Amino acid sequence: LADGRIIRTSRRARKSAAGYDLTRLFVGSEGTLGIITAAVLKLFPKPRTSATAFAAIADVGAAVALLSELRQALGDRLTGFELISAECIAVTRRAFPAMPDPLPGHAWYVLVHADDPAAQSALSEQLQGALAEAIERGTARDATIARSESQAAELWALRESIPDAQRRAGHNIKHDISLPVSSIPAFLTQAKRALDAALPGVGYVTFGHLGDGNLHYNLVPAPDGQGDAFAAATAQANRIVYDLVARCGGSFSAEHGIGQLKRDELVRYRQPVEIDLMQRIKRALDPDGLLNPGKVL
Amino acid sequence: LADGRIIRTSRRARKSAAGYDLTRLFVGSEGTLGIITAAVLKLFPKPRTSATAFAAIADVGAAVALLSELRQALGDRLTGFELISAECIAVTRRAFPAMPDPLPGHAWYVLVHADDPAAQSALSEQLQGALAEAIERGTARDATIARSESQAAELWALRESIPDAQRRAGHNIKHDISLPVSSIPAFLTQAKRALDAALPGVGYVTFGHLGDGNLHYNLVPAPDGQGDAFAAATAQANRIVYDLVARCGGSFSAEHGIGQLKRDELVRYRQPVEIDLMQRIKRALDPDGLLNPGKVL
Repeated sequence: LADGRIIRTSRRARKSAAGYDLTRLFVGSEGTLGIITAAVLKLFPKPRTSATAFAAIADVGAAVALLSELRQALGDRLTGFELISAECIAVTRRAFPAMPDPLPGHAWYVLVHADDPAAQSALSEQLQGALAEAIERGTARDATIARSESQAAELWALRESIPDAQRRAGHNIKHDISLPVSSIPAFLTQAKRALDAALPGVGYVTFGHLGDGNLHYNLVPAPDGQGDAFAAATAQANRIVYDLVARCGGSFSAEHGIGQLKRDELVRYRQPVEIDLMQRIKRALDPDGLLNPGKVL
Repeated sequence: LADGRIIRTSRRARKSAAGYDLTRLFVGSEGTLGIITAAVLKLFPKPRTSATAFAAIADVGAAVALLSELRQALGDRLTGFELISAECIAVTRRAFPAMPDPLPGHAWYVLVHADDPAAQSALSEQLQGALAEAIERGTARDATIARSESQAAELWALRESIPDAQRRAGHNIKHDISLPVSSIPAFLTQAKRALDAALPGVGYVTFGHLGDGNLHYNLVPAPDGQGDAFAAATAQANRIVYDLVARCGGSFSAEHGIGQLKRDELVRYRQPVEIDLMQRIKRALDPDGLLNPGKVL
């Protein structure tokens, strides 16, 4: 703690209703309330069966429907559902030409992953069956299942290389946002309309963890766009994106926190009473403001 | 809030890293920081396949091993794993003679439940197969699968009637405790040794949600025990049980909270620095102590 005392907020038991949940108060406080020096982890059996697939879909509405269908078929064994736009694949293959292009010619894709702790599991057949039904129903346009661990690793490498490829492609305006899953299609339509008008020719590199409602919604300049002019439009683009996120009931920071960069957004998008409560808690725990000054609040 | 302001701590999006986690601070604060007037719920598909089984086991160590085996076989589709002692069944059948006694003659049982969102699922066969393997391996002594929804409902009625049967059986000393799952067998052995010595003839009505490490560890007087003398021993029994829980890294209140009854335990079993932080938070949010006075802190 700020005064040098050491607090142990968590025990080895998983469940407790003994006073305020101090663990959760420190988690996500970005070092402004205390420094986390140890963590208790709950371990789960390592999956002994996995299945990875790549599906082409018509639009993001179809991705939301496919997510729901695969959840119905696989339950919590569905552990990955990554939305990937065709632009993401193009950017990534420009930077890394050896990357695969598994189902060329579609606008949107999802990378699907499922795990089962059981060794003898029909998981792969169930995923294949669910995707075949989705194609029949029209939710998916096409799909391919990884036939080996190395094929699965290739698909994941494609997904994991997007951020690095983007960095190499030059300046981009990044947004780490979350939305109610069902509102994602409408958000993307409305955000594109507003951004196309404000930043003519802007490109969209959209990917993310659809099951969490978490999008990495990144903007790239028009092919002939001035780098500096584009960078100068960051605040304007952020305002358009975050205002719309707020109207949809989402969050302007899904997983990367506030730090120094998003302090203004915290004040804009959370209620004054929320900020007041956070400041009261900060003062109660760190009255002299010693811990990570200038961050979050 | 105590000052009459209304705060909205949660949005419809599932994921957010935008400032302190105020939702979690209010959850479990028992009305001492604010009054919860609305909640956002995440819905999951209703399971379309379920399976319920009842297994006899030699001891609680075998229950912990069986839990691990069934998790390996079923993953998160294992949704219920209720430990039940033979004493629980005896108490319940004395109060409700129509209740079943599915596998008589064993010391310990578990009620197992599994769910699958898929309509065509081999769940029941998988559970049956896993239990057959457990019997072969010696983890389980015997098992029976409910053949119909009404059989499943009967098994759950047996489990759900234990608290009511206990109430009818007279005074008992109740403990709602949680422990690291792996330490439960040693805890039960050590607690019995200490309690047998302190309260000769004491009976044990032990049941609970083993997957959570949550035990309802209830004591009943010896058949010839004086009701008043037994009730007078409550503080002594609590001390024995909770001291041992604390040494095992558990919690003296797993799910029922502190209220007025366990305020002394909160002070005894949480560090002074934890209590101090809770009090600081209470003062920061409710400086005049208006909300639920006399509870928790």
